[in-house]
Amino acid sequence: MSALFAKPLSVLNVGIASFADAIERRGGAAVRIEWAPPANGDARAGAALARLVNDARVEAANAQAAERYLAAQPRLEGIGVAREALPGMGTRMILHAGPPVAWERMCGPMQGAIVGAILYEGWARDAEAARAMAKGGEIAFEPCHHHGAVGPMAGIISPSMPVWRVLNPVHGNRSFSNLNEGLGKVLRFGANGPEVIARLNWMRDTLAPALQAALGKLGPLEIKPLMAQALHMGDEVHNRNAAASSLLIKRLMPALLKSGAPAADAAAAVEFIAGNDHFFLNISMAACKAMLDAAHGVASSSMVTAMARNGVEFGIRVSGTGERWFTAPAPLVNGLYFPNQSIKDAAPDLGDSAITETAGVGGFAMAAAPAIVKLVGGSPRDALANTLAMTHITLVRNGGFTLPALDFAGAPACIDARRVVDTGILPVINTGIAHKEAGVGQIGAGVTRAPLACFAKALVELKTSCR
Amino acid sequence: MSALFAKPLSVLNVGIASFADAIERRGGAAVRIEWAPPANGDARAGAALARLVNDARVEAANAQAAERYLAAQPRLEGIGVAREALPGMGTRMILHAGPPVAWERMCGPMQGAIVGAILYEGWARDAEAARAMAKGGEIAFEPCHHHGAVGPMAGIISPSMPVWRVLNPVHGNRSFSNLNEGLGKVLRFGANGPEVIARLNWMRDTLAPALQAALGKLGPLEIKPLMAQALHMGDEVHNRNAAASSLLIKRLMPALLKSGAPAADAAAAVEFIAGNDHFFLNISMAACKAMLDAAHGVASSSMVTAMARNGVEFGIRVSGTGERWFTAPAPLVNGLYFPNQSIKDAAPDLGDSAITETAGVGGFAMAAAPAIVKLVGGSPRDALANTLAMTHITLVRNGGFTLPALDFAGAPACIDARRVVDTGILPVINTGIAHKEAGVGQIGAGVTRAPLACFAKALVELKTSCR
Repeated sequence: MSALFAKPLSVLNVGIASFADAIERRGGAAVRIEWAPPANGDARAGAALARLVNDARVEAANAQAAERYLAAQPRLEGIGVAREALPGMGTRMILHAGPPVAWERMCGPMQGAIVGAILYEGWARDAEAARAMAKGGEIAFEPCHHHGAVGPMAGIISPSMPVWRVLNPVHGNRSFSNLNEGLGKVLRFGANGPEVIARLNWMRDTLAPALQAALGKLGPLEIKPLMAQALHMGDEVHNRNAAASSLLIKRLMPALLKSGAPAADAAAAVEFIAGNDHFFLNISMAACKAMLDAAHGVASSSMVTAMARNGVEFGIRVSGTGERWFTAPAPLVNGLYFPNQSIKDAAPDLGDSAITETAGVGGFAMAAAPAIVKLVGGSPRDALANTLAMTHITLVRNGGFTLPALDFAGAPACIDARRVVDTGILPVINTGIAHKEAGVGQIGAGVTRAPLACFAKALVELKTSCR
Repeated sequence: MSALFAKPLSVLNVGIASFADAIERRGGAAVRIEWAPPANGDARAGAALARLVNDARVEAANAQAAERYLAAQPRLEGIGVAREALPGMGTRMILHAGPPVAWERMCGPMQGAIVGAILYEGWARDAEAARAMAKGGEIAFEPCHHHGAVGPMAGIISPSMPVWRVLNPVHGNRSFSNLNEGLGKVLRFGANGPEVIARLNWMRDTLAPALQAALGKLGPLEIKPLMAQALHMGDEVHNRNAAASSLLIKRLMPALLKSGAPAADAAAAVEFIAGNDHFFLNISMAACKAMLDAAHGVASSSMVTAMARNGVEFGIRVSGTGERWFTAPAPLVNGLYFPNQSIKDAAPDLGDSAITETAGVGGFAMAAAPAIVKLVGGSPRDALANTLAMTHITLVRNGGFTLPALDFAGAPACIDARRVVDTGILPVINTGIAHKEAGVGQIGAGVTRAPLACFAKALVELKTSCR
């Protein structure tokens, strides 16, 4: 020992900093290796991880789940009405984003959007009455995810709203999403004024029939090739859908014009879609939901099949743990805020749109979308780094979603909850940010991370079995 | 000396390889520095370069020319007819790409396209008669560039063809281009069969009026912001115009539907444009021509204001040398060829579309368009390297055309002929490749370089004067 310390030392310090501090205080040098115990030292999660790592049953189940995700081919079939299209949708039911949450606990924008939906349905004559109705227990609130659906931000779907209908014919599963209203004062960010309701009425009465007429003429539209093309055009198809929305218009317009839809309606529909670069988002989300539902329910699989936030809790579902949600408090988003807004004004992370990251696009495919940093912050180099980091916690590269900037490597997809807990690398999510109070709307956008605790809880509950 | 050679040598070898070869044969090591004398050793060009480098008059003239290029704001004003819109257009005149060339010397695809234009104009009843008419000197052949116009590939514009009308109101100059026909059997690649003529007739009779009606309703369309947006969506607006064409449709469609154009015509126009990802190319070219014409004619300026190829010669124009072309043989393009085609089947480099590179987009902005390498060859890394290399031969970065992958740096623009000759770094051009025979069409695409000799000749002729 004394001989060792007589020589000049080359020190690598792993983990706790105080050892390196001491050496440096004495004039020595130490290279610090960033390290933390798996699951941040949570012993139950650590034990679960030890049980599940290198378990051949988990590996086989994950391979099967990932294969099902990769094989899915979601098709846009048309537009339906929520009360008819969504399985289990009730006549006095309103669906919301994220895991289950009671009215009293809901964040401001979700309550605001529900008030708007009640007014839109004509169940109450003003906001006060709507609020009393919501509080009085007359309406059932359930997650979109419990009805095959996904909705961005508040994610509110009420019975008479039009919904996109998506079918994955490979596995026979269906998924749904509401229609995107654009930016500004919109229901999904918690606004519920007369202009919001008027726009929803117009979308039901004019836009939806025009789109249904166009899709009826065109036939089912394969969504994955359109997403793949958009990834070559600077979108990540979560918070940047400029190319995908344009490509959708190009596909729909000739059919719309030939469909016999009234010319004034067609013109209004085209103008609305052409003015909304986020129009494709909800289709992207429904397609991701269809791919991931195809991978859900594989016994022993640790693959994550949903990440969703209700503005209070962040929840995940895992293929091998059934319908159960594993939750943790939803984080605040340290993003780019609009003028005169800050993180103090923000609702916590909100929306089903993290289904895109769960499916390997959005934040996972940021390498495809360097220009998105102008919206969510950071540099194009950060965007590349985010995609590369996600390769450490995912099961596959999706060859259907290639990333030009990474020499056409596939997007990292199929989050393995084990790897998240083991590495501490948390799934990255690009997201919009809503004001915490009802009725205000969007106040920014940013990059956030899924909470570790969701994945740790899932591992503890994941049962392995021979099949 | 003997003391020097007694020690181990660290050798840097500059230029001629034989010195390094000799050292390596004796077991020594040499690092080879790539170097060549300016202008490849051309003494006249070298002398001209020595005269022009660090000449304050050239610097001031270039600053002025570049400032005019940057300040230009080309607007799409509408559609006209070539014989009425183009200055100096004759009634028995056909315009072609590149510098002047007589019928006898023209490449196959240019002759083929001219035969097609004669049939389209109804000047001859069959291809044989058209060819005899072209050969007989009854028709004047002049470059598009001599009439404010640019055309891709063969670049054929005949009197009754519709043309895009672009105005740069900042400097008052106008520019023009023909309308893009799509891919496959098309006039610009030398095809001239009945389906080609039928399509040109439809474009004149249906498409052009519909577009004019839409633009009339919409008002003038600013082109630079649209190009800038497309550069954030994976286009380089020369050989990749997928995003720009989609953005154009989004802008034009609502206006078209409100313009009162017949519904069937509108539907056919939308379908045609939606099916042609290159539709924006000709608008991009006319806009580039408008920006560069604004910078033309500044005495003493060595800034390149046009690069164009006629399939026999590559020609450039320089701001300070008037209307004169400086030419060299057009190169063959070592690109990606379609199945069963090779460089042996190719016409030499062809088309006015290198006006895009002259204006800082196309190959100069390849960093924005990593996915284009699937068309023109190479890797996304090469695309970045091409853009970076062009910074060594250009006067400015265009802050109006930012490149996300390079952390939003401006595209390198305004080629300085002095720097090309001094560094030997040749302007990079993304280009389509036509079959060498008339009537076959496109056989590939690739990346090529402008010939050094054009720039060397221009320097020799550039006069400097105090102003």
